[in-house]
Amino acid sequence: MTGKIYLIGAGPGDPELMTMKAIRMLKEADVVVYDRLVSDEIVAMAQPDAQMIFVGKASNCHTVPQERINEILVEKARAGHIVARVKGGDPLIFGRGSEEAAYVMSHGVAVEYAPGITAAQGAASVTGIPLTHRGLATGVQYVTGHRQADGALDLDWKRLANPDTTLVVYMGVGNIGQIAMGLMTEGLAGATPVMAISRASTPHESRMLSTLDQVAQDTRRAGLKPPTLFIIGKVVSLYDTIQLDPSQEVAAHA
Amino acid sequence: MTGKIYLIGAGPGDPELMTMKAIRMLKEADVVVYDRLVSDEIVAMAQPDAQMIFVGKASNCHTVPQERINEILVEKARAGHIVARVKGGDPLIFGRGSEEAAYVMSHGVAVEYAPGITAAQGAASVTGIPLTHRGLATGVQYVTGHRQADGALDLDWKRLANPDTTLVVYMGVGNIGQIAMGLMTEGLAGATPVMAISRASTPHESRMLSTLDQVAQDTRRAGLKPPTLFIIGKVVSLYDTIQLDPSQEVAAHA
Repeated sequence: MTGKIYLIGAGPGDPELMTMKAIRMLKEADVVVYDRLVSDEIVAMAQPDAQMIFVGKASNCHTVPQERINEILVEKARAGHIVARVKGGDPLIFGRGSEEAAYVMSHGVAVEYAPGITAAQGAASVTGIPLTHRGLATGVQYVTGHRQADGALDLDWKRLANPDTTLVVYMGVGNIGQIAMGLMTEGLAGATPVMAISRASTPHESRMLSTLDQVAQDTRRAGLKPPTLFIIGKVVSLYDTIQLDPSQEVAAHA
Repeated sequence: MTGKIYLIGAGPGDPELMTMKAIRMLKEADVVVYDRLVSDEIVAMAQPDAQMIFVGKASNCHTVPQERINEILVEKARAGHIVARVKGGDPLIFGRGSEEAAYVMSHGVAVEYAPGITAAQGAASVTGIPLTHRGLATGVQYVTGHRQADGALDLDWKRLANPDTTLVVYMGVGNIGQIAMGLMTEGLAGATPVMAISRASTPHESRMLSTLDQVAQDTRRAGLKPPTLFIIGKVVSLYDTIQLDPSQEVAAHA
């Protein structure tokens, strides 16, 4: 009897930002396959006797190659296990969840998803910066600033440089200089406000407010490390006027 | 002693897709102010003796005007209540949550957020259609297809017509013809696949697979009503090959 795969989004870090479905599936699993971006508190929610497999995937550093992760998922499901594949954020947004799903389904293994709060939403909820706001941003787009294997940063600057929408760059800390330059070359103002935020919603959260023409330098000076998210656009200008409940401020600002 | 406002994202409809934080805040509140898009099961999680205020906000049909909603929030918080302002999806994505927050904060009332699974993520998780996927979509963008008060559909077709990203249109059922035409005029292929999905993750879910050049006609014929979401892009082509766990299929397809 073949088991199945639960592809679970663990959200931005705070265990309380997981969905009920994600927690239910994690607790049902007898095998848990998880990444570096899944916090210890979340891993600890699994059954005490579940087999825990750390695959340590992080930007530019695959402890376990993707092909091997795929094989582990199929092997464990074929052995009859309920396998929780737990990823930071949402498995269907920059999570390669759909690649893993395609692989296991092509081997006859069923998949069910639990969506997760993606990093952009986590950052919005702790800072109060909206992703859309009437008069400031008619929409929002998420892109990744991480290079593909071939080394090229394949972004369409003209389409991204839209002053009337919010741009959120995931995994961009290494290339934020190139990203900012590309956006300014296509007409986005250097004074456009930028919020850089690392590990939003966790005790290790840090925030840095900057502008597009300064963000590369500020990021280097502040020593921001992955995972860092950049929110770029007029919505960030609301940050100064936002006074959230102080109990929500979980860490010193960078 | 002034109370406070919890701005809560209730997610796409299935109560199990709420975050733990959203549920905790909802249960703490002694006043609950909620919209039409929040399901009965979610409303029922509030304290039995909480004051329930239905403000019925829906596209083009504000049972209670926005200005009055703002006033209610301030009045109730100033009376010392913990007020849960509950919205479908995520309060900081097309939810006008940040407008309500700005109003109440300018009146000295503190706000705390609970993010929610936005409709695009709910649709992705039940269909298995990823919002990004290597080789098919380098990013994703969310726009609203709902007209502003002045009647103009203010979208930048050239920037939206990107074959290499996923476009998700919220609240677009009334204007999908104009949207599809705008995208095709700017070069997006008529054969681009489109998934229209209403009330994903609820017992009333319906899905319709179409293409950009047919979607307006198909939407009319199928009689799709708001709230309907359109996922436009190459990622939708994966839908045919996806075989999710049948237990996840909650409703007949349109």
